[in-house]
Amino acid sequence: MDRYLVISSDCHAGLPGEQYREYLEPGYRDEFDTFLTERAAMEAEIASRGLRNEEFAEQWFEDNEEGLRGGWDATRRDQELEADGVAGEVIFPDADAVSGGASAPFGAGLGMSSDIPGDLLMAGARAHNRWLAELCSDSPHRRAGIAIVPILDDIEAAVTEIRRARESGLRGGILIPAMWRPYAPYHDPRYEPVWSVCEELEMPVHTHSGSAPKEEFGEHVGLYIAEVRFWATRPLWFLLWSGVFERHPGLRFAVTECGAFWAADLLWTMDIAYDREHASKKLGSQLTATLPRRPSEYFDRNCGIGAANTRRRELARRHEIGVGNIMWGNDFPHPEGTWPHTREFLRDAFWDIPVDDTARILGTNAAEFFGFDTARLRELADRIGPTPAELGQTEADDGRWTELAAAGRPWLTGKEALAVPEG
Amino acid sequence: MDRYLVISSDCHAGLPGEQYREYLEPGYRDEFDTFLTERAAMEAEIASRGLRNEEFAEQWFEDNEEGLRGGWDATRRDQELEADGVAGEVIFPDADAVSGGASAPFGAGLGMSSDIPGDLLMAGARAHNRWLAELCSDSPHRRAGIAIVPILDDIEAAVTEIRRARESGLRGGILIPAMWRPYAPYHDPRYEPVWSVCEELEMPVHTHSGSAPKEEFGEHVGLYIAEVRFWATRPLWFLLWSGVFERHPGLRFAVTECGAFWAADLLWTMDIAYDREHASKKLGSQLTATLPRRPSEYFDRNCGIGAANTRRRELARRHEIGVGNIMWGNDFPHPEGTWPHTREFLRDAFWDIPVDDTARILGTNAAEFFGFDTARLRELADRIGPTPAELGQTEADDGRWTELAAAGRPWLTGKEALAVPEG
Repeated sequence: MDRYLVISSDCHAGLPGEQYREYLEPGYRDEFDTFLTERAAMEAEIASRGLRNEEFAEQWFEDNEEGLRGGWDATRRDQELEADGVAGEVIFPDADAVSGGASAPFGAGLGMSSDIPGDLLMAGARAHNRWLAELCSDSPHRRAGIAIVPILDDIEAAVTEIRRARESGLRGGILIPAMWRPYAPYHDPRYEPVWSVCEELEMPVHTHSGSAPKEEFGEHVGLYIAEVRFWATRPLWFLLWSGVFERHPGLRFAVTECGAFWAADLLWTMDIAYDREHASKKLGSQLTATLPRRPSEYFDRNCGIGAANTRRRELARRHEIGVGNIMWGNDFPHPEGTWPHTREFLRDAFWDIPVDDTARILGTNAAEFFGFDTARLRELADRIGPTPAELGQTEADDGRWTELAAAGRPWLTGKEALAVPEG
Repeated sequence: MDRYLVISSDCHAGLPGEQYREYLEPGYRDEFDTFLTERAAMEAEIASRGLRNEEFAEQWFEDNEEGLRGGWDATRRDQELEADGVAGEVIFPDADAVSGGASAPFGAGLGMSSDIPGDLLMAGARAHNRWLAELCSDSPHRRAGIAIVPILDDIEAAVTEIRRARESGLRGGILIPAMWRPYAPYHDPRYEPVWSVCEELEMPVHTHSGSAPKEEFGEHVGLYIAEVRFWATRPLWFLLWSGVFERHPGLRFAVTECGAFWAADLLWTMDIAYDREHASKKLGSQLTATLPRRPSEYFDRNCGIGAANTRRRELARRHEIGVGNIMWGNDFPHPEGTWPHTREFLRDAFWDIPVDDTARILGTNAAEFFGFDTARLRELADRIGPTPAELGQTEADDGRWTELAAAGRPWLTGKEALAVPEG
């Protein structure tokens, strides 16, 4: 039985903080010392406020001391990914999601905020991008590195960095800030040069879970949990409804580590509004004036979901979300991901998912989205990838999902169906 | 066969704008003239920007000229609701959702915004509340009127108005602004007096679809469509995670006209974070420090969903949302609702939903939430309510939903199931 070609669309890499020094332009090194001191103080405050489970953190670092070096060490990284059955990877910043110790300078990264001066953010981003290109040059066919590009403050500098990053070998695309305040929202024409260059260079644009308006949450971590996915997915519909995907048919956009479940209801609400279903009849022509296609058509053409650890409830909705849009990931080396137990997680989630769907979600969707050379990766996958039998898929193709597959997106097909996976 | 007791948890009433004059305190009447002039200009602008379907609007007013008078005329209102099969109703402001012609003074109402000075908003609210109490005094057992209470600017004035409104006969609760900016978020202790008085007087607190940060949307109406539900539901988790429901076990909170579908995924993500399921193990003790119960427990105890026109995809998820939490509504007299064709809408949505579940969603949930005298309403319902046969429920209790009902909330029961409604 063929082994699956597995690509993780959500991995992370970053140097232990102080090691970024040599990648920073010299003029920023003094400020880097200040930044490191402030970050250490902030981490101590997080601990003192009960925001981190210290017992868990201690155990995590003890259990995975060697494996976590894969966050920046290429050889160790390959060992860990192979043990997980992962042949290819898409690399976001911030290797350490427990103590924040392996993040790009000046807060450039998953949680980048406009509170930090734009030139500092960009300097930190460039330092990370230089280092990441080096990491990717080791086994480049296995790694699609993502450049951090803070696009809000200086569009011209952002475009320059996108071109430089692409030339340096980073082909996974760019990570942009999920939140734009106090700058203009992403429907604004000022961002056109960014979308244009990313379309031209085939660099997907990414948001990743992390940012949220924490100043509104007070001491309540639960508020972050309740709405963090909204803030990372929000740019998707800003680009869609403002016609960015219409003007840039080749532009690719992905939302990562927000799960995939939200996409079904989002597409439903947007499509039926576009189609002027009952409740939207009163809306005027402006709604669809610049969009010749239905929202779900742009979504299928331009968007991907870096779903990370796919859950049963979202796999059950995959025909509404789009089987071709969901890209699994192990979130290596973060503790909320599936590493180092990916094979068990995959069995629990995919045991009754048809082999064709599994193959797409675990690998071929990402291969297409990021342009991996699957012929080259196949050799590795044939050695390390899990087989359908290892995922327990003995009855996955017994037809239990047929009705659901036929219904697809019920609001478009008119066929209503919800599947019953037994057991 | 028994007729259903139907209560609409989402109705609207409002005077044609200029008629509010006599309900306004005299000192605000000059400003009211200015307001009416400005509103007329704004409506003209909406038309000119292609935001409204003029053809639809014309037809709507032509087809429903008489019925729409039920927006403010009690006798006509009862006729329309009875024709729809509706015995009891919960009354929000803003009768005219097409041309905005029957809304409370100074923008107090569904879309109330902090751009308007607090004292003006409160004066407009009081004028509406005085009039609404008169409307409700006609057939009070049928009407739970909701007082508009802008709570952001002056908490003391808000508490005073809540007491006055309750004494005047408004027992449906209060409508608060869904968005708090630039004031403190709803987790802030400054709002405690509001939650306390609402708990004491058994006045449910409501948000209703309408507000959104339009200044971020530019010309793109689709952005409003994509996220308007987020902004109206957001206060729910701010109250929940900040312990408002823990401190006020008797407080009731409802989100209206946002559908119900979102509640399933929201409860899932909040519960599994609270339970420290895999991805949340790293979070510290702060997460649950002030919440002895799981989020879904507070939701079931303190919250209701004024779902308005219930869709098939949310009825299919009712066991995750909570059958006891969903309250149907016809949105009278808004065109996005089911009036004047409610009986047809109900047949299309409920034809295979078990009679017990239907009875709760269509009426008894709202009766409990708002304290309707069901013994009194029963007489009317026995005359006008739809029967299960009229809803086509000949096979609704054939067991097709048994597995789904048993699974309940799968993340709590451990039983995974998705139903197959046939046809």
